[in-house]
Parts: sequence; structure tokens; C-alpha cells
Amino acid sequence: MNGAQALIRTLVDCRVDVCFTNPGTSEMHFVAALDSVPEMRASLGLFEGVVTGAADGYGRMAERPAATLLHLGPGLGNGLANLHNARRARTPVVNIVGDHALPHKQHDAPLESDIESVASNVSGWIRTSQSAAAVAGDAAESVAAAMGPPGQVATLILPADVSWTDGAEPAAPRPAPARGVVSADVVDRVAKALVSGEPSVLLVGGSAMRARGLEAASRVANTTGAKLLGETFPARLERGAGLPPIERLGYLAEFTVAQLEGARHLVLVDTKAPVSFFAYPEKPSYLVPDGCEVHVLACDADDAVTALEGLADVVGASAEAVTRQPTDRPDRPTGDLNGETVAAALGALLPEGAIVSDEANTQGLWASPATAGAPPHDWLTLTGGAIGQGLPVATGAAVACPDRKVVSLEADGSAMYTFQSLWTQAREGLDVTTVVFNNRSYAILNLELSRVGADSSGPKAREMLDLSRPDLDFVSLAQGMGVPAARANTAEEFVSALDRAMAAEGPQLVEAVLPARM
Amino acid sequence: MNGAQALIRTLVDCRVDVCFTNPGTSEMHFVAALDSVPEMRASLGLFEGVVTGAADGYGRMAERPAATLLHLGPGLGNGLANLHNARRARTPVVNIVGDHALPHKQHDAPLESDIESVASNVSGWIRTSQSAAAVAGDAAESVAAAMGPPGQVATLILPADVSWTDGAEPAAPRPAPARGVVSADVVDRVAKALVSGEPSVLLVGGSAMRARGLEAASRVANTTGAKLLGETFPARLERGAGLPPIERLGYLAEFTVAQLEGARHLVLVDTKAPVSFFAYPEKPSYLVPDGCEVHVLACDADDAVTALEGLADVVGASAEAVTRQPTDRPDRPTGDLNGETVAAALGALLPEGAIVSDEANTQGLWASPATAGAPPHDWLTLTGGAIGQGLPVATGAAVACPDRKVVSLEADGSAMYTFQSLWTQAREGLDVTTVVFNNRSYAILNLELSRVGADSSGPKAREMLDLSRPDLDFVSLAQGMGVPAARANTAEEFVSALDRAMAAEGPQLVEAVLPARM
Repeated sequence: MNGAQALIRTLVDCRVDVCFTNPGTSEMHFVAALDSVPEMRASLGLFEGVVTGAADGYGRMAERPAATLLHLGPGLGNGLANLHNARRARTPVVNIVGDHALPHKQHDAPLESDIESVASNVSGWIRTSQSAAAVAGDAAESVAAAMGPPGQVATLILPADVSWTDGAEPAAPRPAPARGVVSADVVDRVAKALVSGEPSVLLVGGSAMRARGLEAASRVANTTGAKLLGETFPARLERGAGLPPIERLGYLAEFTVAQLEGARHLVLVDTKAPVSFFAYPEKPSYLVPDGCEVHVLACDADDAVTALEGLADVVGASAEAVTRQPTDRPDRPTGDLNGETVAAALGALLPEGAIVSDEANTQGLWASPATAGAPPHDWLTLTGGAIGQGLPVATGAAVACPDRKVVSLEADGSAMYTFQSLWTQAREGLDVTTVVFNNRSYAILNLELSRVGADSSGPKAREMLDLSRPDLDFVSLAQGMGVPAARANTAEEFVSALDRAMAAEGPQLVEAVLPARM
Repeated sequence: MNGAQALIRTLVDCRVDVCFTNPGTSEMHFVAALDSVPEMRASLGLFEGVVTGAADGYGRMAERPAATLLHLGPGLGNGLANLHNARRARTPVVNIVGDHALPHKQHDAPLESDIESVASNVSGWIRTSQSAAAVAGDAAESVAAAMGPPGQVATLILPADVSWTDGAEPAAPRPAPARGVVSADVVDRVAKALVSGEPSVLLVGGSAMRARGLEAASRVANTTGAKLLGETFPARLERGAGLPPIERLGYLAEFTVAQLEGARHLVLVDTKAPVSFFAYPEKPSYLVPDGCEVHVLACDADDAVTALEGLADVVGASAEAVTRQPTDRPDRPTGDLNGETVAAALGALLPEGAIVSDEANTQGLWASPATAGAPPHDWLTLTGGAIGQGLPVATGAAVACPDRKVVSLEADGSAMYTFQSLWTQAREGLDVTTVVFNNRSYAILNLELSRVGADSSGPKAREMLDLSRPDLDFVSLAQGMGVPAARANTAEEFVSALDRAMAAEGPQLVEAVLPARM
């Protein structure tokens, strides 16, 4: 058994049985070894950002890592933006980067680079495997590192000769540490703040954005009078009819400031104190109100859900004190097609158990409220702000959950970073419907251009934010990668196209032609 | 004047008057400032790999840098692969990466990352500008650093508040150092080796691959009997009828070994001693024959061309001792379409002064010999081995040379990394004809899979190298980005489509459907 075979066998034994790949020559022994381990599923991406974003989407839904397979430093570079998002999502990912054979590195061949330094930003764990004898153990440790808690990107650098050398043996899975128990003292201190009678906010994120955590948080808020808020960009939010609704902090700092106004206590549950996404001249970055005390109930490796349940008990919340979202779907919209009518159509048609990958940005503003009362579903957001996440995350989520409909809400500008995702969806027959919100601009930047106080009147500046001339034809682009596609210019056309896509199996794309935003 | 305005004014004063951009919020003041400096041309890319590859292509042809504008660490990551290629090409590039405002960085906002560490691999010079007062000076130094010699990527990190703060002033251009003069001693020692009567190879690369350097090298080879060879992947090779022809070292190590066999002296002119691109089990990486002495005539910052001319004089070469390529075009091919007939059509139709961006990989093998006797043209190759270079380099070359036809030879697999280039070509009306060699596979990896000694029989391994299921439709993809496109299934169809594209102005794409290589 060579190193690559032992590595893949070990990954499968550690329950890592999906590998998203974009290999090159230095990874050919890994590729050849795939057939020696039938349990490993390999899925090819045409670009590394697809590979890493798919691993993120997979990990968010499967709650265990997928592996990647990337080609040397440049391949890692191409995958870096979505590893950044995965890092912010705290998604477990085993990020395998092939390297030159160890004795080859001294020669500074054309593709030579310092892979560890490129990986350092996004990886909580990095190791360059040194021998075929060591690689299986390295793999087992990479899986344990990826699992955390919290989840993280573990980068295993795999020299070609480590893969091809014989004499390797699989390694046993490493024990997975449990999340840490939050002490009763901490819970009591937080409870005391919440029952103080002073205005309080309970800000929930991360692992607490699932049903159990939200139910406990709702009990706490209803019993203490605290305002319940969720973080702006959760990795995975469970929502919909029957689940506790949660208002998320706004993306714009002004909104967050308004949401937190007057709070004297801010309790953080697996999230951080709010800061603005970007800095703006003369405006604060740190958004916690003056005089507001920050309390951390749980963070990082803590068992936030159990801590919330303990908190609910300490504040005397009954098991029934949960606010639950009533079923409430909008009517099928008619008339003009715009962000609101697209959202209404989604609210009307979203099937139970859907997974929504949300990178619709400005035009997606209405999608969240319009689907609040739809049947239960998961909502995956742009955790790290590096656009080009949505389509790959949808791809990986569909691999993780083959029985669920994935709906990928995608802005036109963001779509173009990792549009190659559609090809992988077509090859794998993934049940993903992509909705492209085509307003022919980087609309978020039009907004930001004025918000940062920059003069936005010049034609060259406007041209940098304009995606027309030429208009992108997303129907042609999708068809070019084997995905059936339709264009909608009116609400009726959009409802009809979305209805067909929801009824179909396999990848579909609907281009929603929206009013231009310039 | 704010920092961004002073920066752009300084760049223009330093003759950097093209900026390839993919901006985000932290770059909005830079974007707004574009209109205050009319001489600066800004060109939007939909993906950062387009931006950095275009800067590479521009720099290779213009012999001065373009600027980039990238958004934070993830944007730099997306641009890293083509910066790697630019580094290997020794192309001057001023790589501007926006960052959060300096006081914002402490807050670890979602897009926070360590940009310098990501930039370190590809950059010969890195600076994070610390104030509006300093930024113009930083810009002037970045241009000087980029120019070298030799050319390199100079990364200027631009915090948002440095851009938006007022009170900045433009800075004066820094003096550009000349290339170093190679000493007469070195030239004499090399001459002695070449006239020793022992088998010798004169290996030319880098700055010596242009007409003047090749003429001097040809004189030396013809006078001393040395074998003249060129490096495998030159950044820019001048070739065609009337120019000295040069045989390039093979990509496959076996070929290089055969080309160098028996040599007792290897003279290096602005290139390195040959090593294999990848390592292979039981095969050497270093390809210089045993017992062959390596002599460096010129490297790095040296004036290699003047050194070659001096060498020609020392060995007593007459000015007429230059081998010149005769005009020799193949006939227009007929019959089946394959790599050979595509190449023959190119040889028959390539116009004078064309710039060829060559990323056709396996299928492009015949393109170089078939165009050897075409009218003079430039040939730009995949210097760093990070695929996804060809279309962006063609884009930047067309911006640099608006009066020349650019022909972009592109493999199907490589095309899909940075296909968004076509949109920039359409927006800018660039005179680029893209030829996609569509054999529906990563053919180079099929070759490499067997060459590395890996078992290539498994269906999962084969699937990782197969680009069919679904087939990519490059005509639809091009049309989706506003580029007129045609598909050719026979040699006649290809000739006809290429003929039309050569006669047209503006971007065109021809998909050559080739026999599948699996």
C-alpha cells in the first residue's frame, strides 16, 4: 500500500468519505488511489474555488469534513477565498494540498512555492507530511483537528513522493474531543445580568443557530425580557414554520447600532461582539453601545447549546416559553419582477427541508423575511464576506444532503467568481436550483461608494461597478455547462420557472432579470 | 487631494497608466479617484485571476507595469496563481491590494486577514502604506521595485483610510536602475568554453528571447558550433520569418535529457539550469548531463543581450552569421480536425505582428512548428505552470498593443479557470481571437498519470481527468459573456471560422472540437 492509498483509507475510516478535487500532476498517485478505496466519493471541480466552497457547504450540512484535493501553491491560492469563508464559518475541512516530491523542492521548479505560508491565514492546523510511513497518522490527526471543536480548516500538505512510496499502513481515527462544559458560575453571572431588569440583548451565533439552541434562546428571551438577536452571517441557521424566529443583526452598521441601542447588557452565545463589516470615515468600528456590559456565555469550543439550556433553567423558563414561527407563505406574486417579487415567489414555493445558500446580497434583502413562515429549512450565509461562495456552498450542501432541495440565491456579480460550480452540479446530478438576481451591477458597491463618502459621480468610477456592456447572459452560461436554464422578466414568468425547477430533480438555473441599479 | 488621488497621480507620472481592477468596499475611494486622473485607464475584471493575468500580459508586451486593484486577502488569493506566473515571467506588476482602515484591523472583521503573508510568495517587494502622506512615495517606490531589473511583482497594500485621508501630494518617479554590465572576464571565460571544441549548448531565456538577443545568440552558435536552445516556457519569444529560429527545451524531462545529451559545456543566458517540471519516481530532477560544466553568462539583473553581443564579438562572429527563419506557411488544411490541422490553419493564417498567448498544452504541440515560418509575431507561454493564465494574458497583451491581433490558444481545461476574461475582452472591445482546443479532458494529466507510474485503470481516476459528462459548450459560454463564437468540427470549418476571426476586429472565439483523449 502506498502513501496515497493509506491516506485515503484512513480518511474513510475517519468518516471523511467525500473528496472535492482539482488535481494536477503531483496529485496523480492520490487520484490513482481513489479506486483502491471504494467508499471514497470523488467529485471534480473545474476551479479550486468550487472545490473549497463545496467542502465548506458539505461540512456545514454533514457536520463532518469533506476533503479537498488541490494542486500546489497556485491551486491553494485559487481556493483561498472560500477557505477564508469556511474558516469564518468554523466549518471542518480537511484541505489536502499536493506538493512536489520532497527532494524536488530544492530545484525551484516552475510551480515551486511556499505552501505553508499561503495556507497560514485560513488554517487552524497545518502539516507537511514527511513520509509514507507518517502520512496516515497525519491524515487521522488532520481530521481530528478539522473537527475541533470548533470546526476549522486543517491543511495537510502532501508531497508527491509521500503519495507514491510503498510500505504505508492506515492509521486509526483519533478520538474527537467533546465541546467544553460552561461552568455554572458563568451561567449564573449571565442569568443575573439578564434578570437585572436593565435592557439586555441575547446575541446568538454559530452552533446555537440550530433548532435546539434557538429554542433555549427563545425561552431565555421570553422569560427575561431580553431582546433576542442573531449574528449577521450565520454558517447555518435553522428556520421556518414551527421554529423560533430570530432577527439577525444588520449588515449595515447603522442598523446594528439601532438594534443594540439602549442595551446595558449584551450576552454573547458562540459569537463575537459586533463590529462593522468595513470601516467608514468618522464612524466607529465597534458597535456595542457605550455603557453596555458584554458577557460571554459560550464561545469557541464551548457547548453553547447546553449552556443556553442551562441558562433557560436558571432564569426559570418553562419548556413551553418558546416563540414559534407560524406558517405564513406569501401569495404567488404577479407583475413586475424585482427583489420583492422574487422573494415572494421563493416564500410561496420553497419546499420543506430546503437548504438555501444565500449570496443574493443587495437583491436578496427581501428573501429572508418572505421565507420566514415557509416550511422548515436551513439558511447558509456568506460568513467571511469573500464573494463567490454561494454556488460552491450549494454544490457541497447538495452532496451532503442528496434528499433535500438546495436553492442557491446568487447575485450576478458574485456568481461570476465561481460559476464553474454549475458544471459539477451537472456532472453529479445535484438537486440544486440556482436563482441569479441579475441587476447588471455590483449594487452593493454602488451603495458602499456613497456610504464611504467617496464622490461617486465620475464615469470611470461608475463603470467599475457596472456589469452591463456587455450584459451577462446567465442562461447561455448555464447551458454551456450542461445546466438547464430559463430567463424570467416578469413575476409570473419567475413563478412559473421556479415552480418547474422545484418540481424537477437535478440542477436548474433561473435568471431573474431585475431593474438595473446604477 | 486624498491618498487615493495622490497614488493614482503618482502611478501615472511613473508611466503606470493602466489599472486592471476588481474592487470592493475598501477600494471605493481608489475607484472614486480614478476620475480625478484622466490619464489612468481602468479595466474591470469579473474575477481576480483575470486582473492579475492581464497585468502579466500587459507587462510582458508594454515592458512597464500595469497596476492591479484587488480586494483584501481573499481577492489577492483569487489572483495569486497568475501572480505566480508573472513572478516566473519576471513581469513588472504593481499589485495593489486594498485593506481595511488601519484602526479597523484590530477588530477582526469578517474579511480581516494577513495580506502580507499571502503576498509573500509572489512578491519581490511588499509594503503596507501607513498614511496618506506616505502613500505617493510608496507608489513611486513600488513602480521602481516592479521594474527591477529584473521585473517583479511589487505588492502595495492600501488601507482604506490611507486612501480616504486628505492632505496627500503626488511623489516624483524614482530613478530606474539600468541592467548590470557583464564583465569582460565572464564573457572571455564563456567564450573559451565555447571555442574549446567540446560539445556545448547555449541555452537562452528571459530577456534574451527577443530579436536582438536571438540574433547575437545565433551568431555565437553558428561561429562556435554550440547548439542553440531556448528555455521551455519563455515569457515572450519573438519569432517568425526573418528572425532567428530557436528550438526550445522540451516540457518532458526525457526530451530535455535528449536535447542536452553529450554536452560538456552549458552556457546559461538569463535562464536557469534545466530541472524537470515535476518529479517522477526513480528519475532525476536535475537535467544537466553528468560531467557537463555550467557557465552563467548573464542572469537576473544582468544585461544579457549586450553580454551576448559581446560574446559574439569575442568569438569572432561576423554580423552576418545569423540564421534566419525563411517564410514558410503550411497550406490551409482539409479533412479531420485535430491538433495538427488546427496548427496548420494557424500557420496559414497568422497575421504579421500577431501576439500568441499559448496555453493550448497537449493539443498545442503542433502550433509552434506550424507557425515557425509565419510573419514575425510574439509568443507568450505559461511561465509558472499555473493554468488559467492564457486568456487573461491575452487580454492584457491586447490592452498593451491595441494595433496588433492577439491569438489566444487555450486548452479546454485551462480555459475554465479564468473564462471570465472574455467579458473584459468584450467590454474593452479587445482584438483577441480565442481558439479553444476542446478534447474534453485534462489530457496532460492522462499523460502524467501514466508517466508518474500510477495505475491509471480505475474508473474513478479516469473520471478526475475527464471533462465530458457534461461536455462544455464554449460557444454558449462565450456568447453568455458577449463574445461572438463559432464551433468547428472539420478542418475546413476551422479554417473558415479562423479566417473570419482574423478579418474581424474585436473579440472572437472559435471552438475546435477535437478527438477526445481518454
